[in-house]
Amino acid sequence: MKLSIVAFDNFTDIDVFLMWDIFNRVDAPNWSVEILGSQDSHISSTGIRIPMHGQLERARHSDAVLFASGIGTRAVIKDQAYLDRLQLDPTKQLIGSMCSGSLILAKLGLIQGPATTYPTSRRELIAMGVEVVERPFVRNGNVATAAGCLAAQYLAGWIIETLTDEATKERALLQIQPVGEGQSYAADEAGVALTAV
Amino acid sequence: MKLSIVAFDNFTDIDVFLMWDIFNRVDAPNWSVEILGSQDSHISSTGIRIPMHGQLERARHSDAVLFASGIGTRAVIKDQAYLDRLQLDPTKQLIGSMCSGSLILAKLGLIQGPATTYPTSRRELIAMGVEVVERPFVRNGNVATAAGCLAAQYLAGWIIETLTDEATKERALLQIQPVGEGQSYAADEAGVALTAV
Repeated sequence: MKLSIVAFDNFTDIDVFLMWDIFNRVDAPNWSVEILGSQDSHISSTGIRIPMHGQLERARHSDAVLFASGIGTRAVIKDQAYLDRLQLDPTKQLIGSMCSGSLILAKLGLIQGPATTYPTSRRELIAMGVEVVERPFVRNGNVATAAGCLAAQYLAGWIIETLTDEATKERALLQIQPVGEGQSYAADEAGVALTAV
Repeated sequence: MKLSIVAFDNFTDIDVFLMWDIFNRVDAPNWSVEILGSQDSHISSTGIRIPMHGQLERARHSDAVLFASGIGTRAVIKDQAYLDRLQLDPTKQLIGSMCSGSLILAKLGLIQGPATTYPTSRRELIAMGVEVVERPFVRNGNVATAAGCLAAQYLAGWIIETLTDEATKERALLQIQPVGEGQSYAADEAGVALTAV
């Protein structure tokens, strides 16, 4: 299973890293995750530059493609050369977005039905002809939108469960919950596999 | 107000980036956040190399110092030269840790009373003489420990409220909540300032 997170300049840090972190806690055979971009590295909206694992063209070969958010999505949707490099296929791939990443899905014509986005990109998404609903996660077939950073759990959870199974999803998501609020020392005592942190 | 997040090789991605993201959503005068390390860049446990904003010695001049977690904490606590570069003062600074960052606080002699940590570092923290309690956030005066990635909200929230006020903390934390689950489009309609993402 190959997963791609798509980043770009001026991405929102947490909307790349929360998905990345959750996906990296998945214990499943042949599971790989990479961050793709149009350049060798991209800078976040807070100024952190991170290296990419590969170029955009690799996304078309992934089982799941997740778009990050950020003020940079506004430049991406105006850049036809960038968009042409994607060539995604929602009949064969799972495709999703965090927050204003929904603008990219809309521009690619991938949103068929209601969708969600961050409050500050709601008007822009409506202007692109999308019915925006106030929900953390909206799925239509193989395409889903999530909004509000911590809703990455729902988006990543859907991807993991679809590509593996419910138990694998639950194990991955449990690992990031607060101790005493979902996660407990009893799990460790009982030998449940946790990524050491 | 100056805040420092301390990273090192083999840090847990989300335990740097969730605090970093929340702190960067704070709207307060003279508010600055930086990520410090012992080198110009550090690599996460999943292989993402990020640049540092400065060296460890700057932490002693910060109002708040937060230690990230990760398997790399085990090397840090054995590196006396690294630890000697910190020179923190809990009578003048707020000091905190995520997950196994608690091992560094313990090694520095900063934990006076119960503390929390991630399940996979619980035995190590107990072996250092600390009473470990199964809670997401434990504070003793100016020193606090948090555990389970999403408990970064409690640690960052304590820091923000102590250095600014409760309303500023609430505004910062609200921005990362899922749409429809805490965060709503009504806030945007009402003109509440949100960082565009």
